[in-house]
Amino acid sequence: MIIRLSPHITPDTSAQLHDQLQALQCSVHAVTTQSASYLVCPGPPSIDLRRVGFLPGVADVHAVSETYQLVSGSWKTQRTTIDLGDGVQIGGGHFALMAGTCSIENETQIQDTVAHLVQQGIRIMRGGVFKPRSSPYAFRGLGMEGLQLFYQHCRQAGIKIITEVMQPAQIDQMYAYTDIFQVGARNAQNFNLLGELGQQDKAVLIKRGISGTIEELLQSAEYVFSAGNERILLCERGIRTFETAYRNTFDINAIPLLKARTHLLVIADPSHGTGIRNLVMPVALAAAMAGADGLLYETHSQPELALSDGQQSLSHEESAELVARLRQILPFCCRS
Amino acid sequence: MIIRLSPHITPDTSAQLHDQLQALQCSVHAVTTQSASYLVCPGPPSIDLRRVGFLPGVADVHAVSETYQLVSGSWKTQRTTIDLGDGVQIGGGHFALMAGTCSIENETQIQDTVAHLVQQGIRIMRGGVFKPRSSPYAFRGLGMEGLQLFYQHCRQAGIKIITEVMQPAQIDQMYAYTDIFQVGARNAQNFNLLGELGQQDKAVLIKRGISGTIEELLQSAEYVFSAGNERILLCERGIRTFETAYRNTFDINAIPLLKARTHLLVIADPSHGTGIRNLVMPVALAAAMAGADGLLYETHSQPELALSDGQQSLSHEESAELVARLRQILPFCCRS
Amino acid sequence: MIIRLSPHITPDTSAQLHDQLQALQCSVHAVTTQSASYLVCPGPPSIDLRRVGFLPGVADVHAVSETYQLVSGSWKTQRTTIDLGDGVQIGGGHFALMAGTCSIENETQIQDTVAHLVQQGIRIMRGGVFKPRSSPYAFRGLGMEGLQLFYQHCRQAGIKIITEVMQPAQIDQMYAYTDIFQVGARNAQNFNLLGELGQQDKAVLIKRGISGTIEELLQSAEYVFSAGNERILLCERGIRTFETAYRNTFDINAIPLLKARTHLLVIADPSHGTGIRNLVMPVALAAAMAGADGLLYETHSQPELALSDGQQSLSHEESAELVARLRQILPFCCRS
Amino acid sequence: MIIRLSPHITPDTSAQLHDQLQALQCSVHAVTTQSASYLVCPGPPSIDLRRVGFLPGVADVHAVSETYQLVSGSWKTQRTTIDLGDGVQIGGGHFALMAGTCSIENETQIQDTVAHLVQQGIRIMRGGVFKPRSSPYAFRGLGMEGLQLFYQHCRQAGIKIITEVMQPAQIDQMYAYTDIFQVGARNAQNFNLLGELGQQDKAVLIKRGISGTIEELLQSAEYVFSAGNERILLCERGIRTFETAYRNTFDINAIPLLKARTHLLVIADPSHGTGIRNLVMPVALAAAMAGADGLLYETHSQPELALSDGQQSLSHEESAELVARLRQILPFCCRS
Repeated sequence: MIIRLSPHITPDTSAQLHDQLQALQCSVHAVTTQSASYLVCPGPPSIDLRRVGFLPGVADVHAVSETYQLVSGSWKTQRTTIDLGDGVQIGGGHFALMAGTCSIENETQIQDTVAHLVQQGIRIMRGGVFKPRSSPYAFRGLGMEGLQLFYQHCRQAGIKIITEVMQPAQIDQMYAYTDIFQVGARNAQNFNLLGELGQQDKAVLIKRGISGTIEELLQSAEYVFSAGNERILLCERGIRTFETAYRNTFDINAIPLLKARTHLLVIADPSHGTGIRNLVMPVALAAAMAGADGLLYETHSQPELALSDGQQSLSHEESAELVARLRQILPFCCRS
Repeated sequence: MIIRLSPHITPDTSAQLHDQLQALQCSVHAVTTQSASYLVCPGPPSIDLRRVGFLPGVADVHAVSETYQLVSGSWKTQRTTIDLGDGVQIGGGHFALMAGTCSIENETQIQDTVAHLVQQGIRIMRGGVFKPRSSPYAFRGLGMEGLQLFYQHCRQAGIKIITEVMQPAQIDQMYAYTDIFQVGARNAQNFNLLGELGQQDKAVLIKRGISGTIEELLQSAEYVFSAGNERILLCERGIRTFETAYRNTFDINAIPLLKARTHLLVIADPSHGTGIRNLVMPVALAAAMAGADGLLYETHSQPELALSDGQQSLSHEESAELVARLRQILPFCCRS
Repeated sequence: MIIRLSPHITPDTSAQLHDQLQALQCSVHAVTTQSASYLVCPGPPSIDLRRVGFLPGVADVHAVSETYQLVSGSWKTQRTTIDLGDGVQIGGGHFALMAGTCSIENETQIQDTVAHLVQQGIRIMRGGVFKPRSSPYAFRGLGMEGLQLFYQHCRQAGIKIITEVMQPAQIDQMYAYTDIFQVGARNAQNFNLLGELGQQDKAVLIKRGISGTIEELLQSAEYVFSAGNERILLCERGIRTFETAYRNTFDINAIPLLKARTHLLVIADPSHGTGIRNLVMPVALAAAMAGADGLLYETHSQPELALSDGQQSLSHEESAELVARLRQILPFCCRS
Repeated sequence: MIIRLSPHITPDTSAQLHDQLQALQCSVHAVTTQSASYLVCPGPPSIDLRRVGFLPGVADVHAVSETYQLVSGSWKTQRTTIDLGDGVQIGGGHFALMAGTCSIENETQIQDTVAHLVQQGIRIMRGGVFKPRSSPYAFRGLGMEGLQLFYQHCRQAGIKIITEVMQPAQIDQMYAYTDIFQVGARNAQNFNLLGELGQQDKAVLIKRGISGTIEELLQSAEYVFSAGNERILLCERGIRTFETAYRNTFDINAIPLLKARTHLLVIADPSHGTGIRNLVMPVALAAAMAGADGLLYETHSQPELALSDGQQSLSHEESAELVARLRQILPFCCRS
């Protein structure tokens, strides 16, 4: 059960309401976000909603039967949109393109990528500076120095930044240079990280875990929302299956199912979802057709020289073709 | 290595060629299909192809390094097409729609479905009369009687039939009433069945196994081709993963990968690939966008009353909408 | 609901009982096996069992709520045992060892294996003559000729034979030479084959499907039992997972779970369950410890020369060590 | 390639050696642990080992071809053992039992558990105070207060503590109260956490990821070792598969494979590996038989009242029976 509080509720009324609900045997969680204040009582409602609806300080009340509550689509019928400023919006009719190299590599590479994005009208650039790598001996990214360089070039070009944050201790230093904090697949259930990001006001993109269920992804989003941040993007990036012909198996079913279960926006990552350059374009177009609200993909001026993930990066020519084809099909896509 | 024999080769020359190859340490498999005769030497070629190319009776020779040979796309650059007669074609610019109920249920139901197909311009009807069911106590289909009824109504309406064959002993009796023999996911590695279907001249649609790899699907197709039948359709129908939110996880990656690896046509089954009615349309459109050559899907005039698979069957209204949307997007799809 | 009929029931009483149950809205399946006659009404019982228990011709009646009925452990508390004759028993205190080469290769190889088995006191030999192979170009076994040779040597040595049957058409010719019909993992849901084997009186070992669930395995066994054959062995042989370090992932949980859910015997196949020679012994001992009633494993006098599965075959020395260690631990195992 | 440095190497010689290796095109990582100093050059060695072996300051040099290096069994033939003090040892002939409640719940519960452990001669107690829960609304543990209480009772009883650490920021406060830091399955690729634990001198138990491969588990251990901590335990706790009959599928193959690939000790968690109380004992005994060096399992005086994981907790009576049976079979187990 979700109770949205009246914007003008007094602390006294709020405390009173809290007590009344506990008296009704509800376990109550108070949540305050950028947009509103809520009282969340997880689990199926055991009491008559009408009884709650008339209590003072209550704006509205909704029954939610899922294990996740605030991110459920059953109480909020209008899809959440995200405004990154400077005219960069996601959702509400704006299909989001987020492209760039896997890792931030060097200044020339940033310039090449920015130039490509500007040419294609892409307003959000991806690039990792803290890289989660299976082996401790692999390249782990350029760190804050790389991020500052990344930021400097993007700001000049009016481009927003999405980049991965790996641990709470990085948030503060990254804050000024980041528009969307990306939570990687290996951290999809790093609950401390999610909780800390819930205390930020910047957007958070949560990748589905390597073998994360739809339910777990929504519960991870609930961690962020219930800690105070409503600006959440979900990202399908392929799951681990028995099939070894690709790096991951892109789960196309997840796109329409997530759209039906939540009011959050859903982004597709066809680069990690396939791991093979030739599959990126058809799967990207398929994901858009199935209702994705945006794409996060890797493009590199010279994929064969990329420091990481070259085998799944589009060349700039391929990226341009993807954008062109995407523009053709967007009017026909299943978005809602 | 695949050697296509000259159409006018004499038995003597053929036998001589066979001996020459064995003398070169090749293990040779002779294959004769509707279209041509081949000698297949599996595995990477150990001899100089030019040496073989000039032998008498050889039309052309191709190196194929995959575990599958005849179905590989590396030797045959033109995609196979299938002509079912009466103007019903698959491939070569014709996107195939195969729709109908999961099981053939009764005459009224056949009539309803045929009427819907005729109205939508769909020329191939699906419907099972031999149903592989996990439980021996479940409805197992109407058998030959059902098939004859099915056939009678379809013939009148100019509609072709795709229906599942479960064992070699059924082929002969089904032959006259069937246009496409469907091999179900549970029989995807029933090698005796595949071998027998390789001796037929009718088209065979092979569903990917419940947890079948891409490689295994192509090897199953190789069983059919190498036994003499080139008229093969591959079908992606979802795989079994850890995710329980849907019946199966539709593997969208498989569509472009299969198109790249084989010259065979690739059909998508979004009904089994999702198991949830609301996901069928977005996934069907996504599969078409990713390059599928056709769709096999379930539609029922009253899905809630279907004897099997009602929860994944489209209503006729939804089916009509799917067809309409499909016609809009086909010009933009990734087919090749 | 399972009704075991009185052994002396007359056809008239039986027909009457059938009618009475149908009048009570039960869907009734009549089953007659080597041991008894049953009426099975699948699904949870909708009627008072006592009402049925007193009907004429009823020996006893049991509520069974699983999707499978006759193989459920909830109605038959005593574990099924299998007697192959000549003192070769499985269950009831007899741990079954079934060992041999993957394929029957030639007479020398049979002799070597038989000699090893005799020396170790192993009374059941495994060996395939019809081999399901992913590729149509791989060695597919010696067929009936191989089986006859196999039989001839085993009969002399007092050894029983387990061998794979791939299709109904093979049953009749194999019958005289086979003691246990093995249904392979790829045929675990070949319902026609299971049904035909249900009409035999010889034992049937059903391997779990490559990604078959516990429930599906039990339903496949139900196909055999409900067609008339109670002599069933279940076999855990590893499942397909994301892990590529081994051929299959042996599912040790399945052993105690199957023992709890069914009255059938459970055999472990550590050769296919691992695919790696060094893992066979520890996993074999672990399976015995967890409650398996027997082992089916591959041993070859020269594993490196085996025509198939050499990399997972024990040498005869390793096999002897396994047998010795097994004898040490059997008193401590969890069997029930 | 791993170079173990001479214990008496001077900083100068060390720096010189570093330079010489870089001149030979090696990428060199310097590692200093509790036991020794190493230079690690990942990847297959490109230079003649003998050439390196004679350089000043080199104690010995080993070729290691795996993606992980220091945890590989190919260079260190003697299995690592762990001494927790006060006579509590793991490995080297000491099978480790670590038992207790899932969560630390309250003082009475701690006392009950400690009493049970003392009675059974179990010297290590498990219990979570920071609980990673899928839902933000679930019980998340008693935190530091709980850990202090936990510690107070264990110290009196001479019992060591294993408890989960969820993030780097918790390490310092937990340090004084913890003997083994447990890294949970959801954090198995939390590389920052692993790196920080590599800077501690206390033992670290790393659980395999929910769908983590063997290779990934070993690479995670490499993070800890290469950051300076050799005291590592690996833990198999079941993987996520398609099977829904249990919470996880215990991967018995992993036990002997890990033992073969690494010199680290391998612990089995049959509670999470099955999720079902009745399966815990047979799977625990099977894991011991297959070569596990210890068990981590859940036991609760009243499993039905446990705040978490009650359905997979043994009662104290069952736990006592497990210990008794374990003592019987340990002489026969495959450990090495």
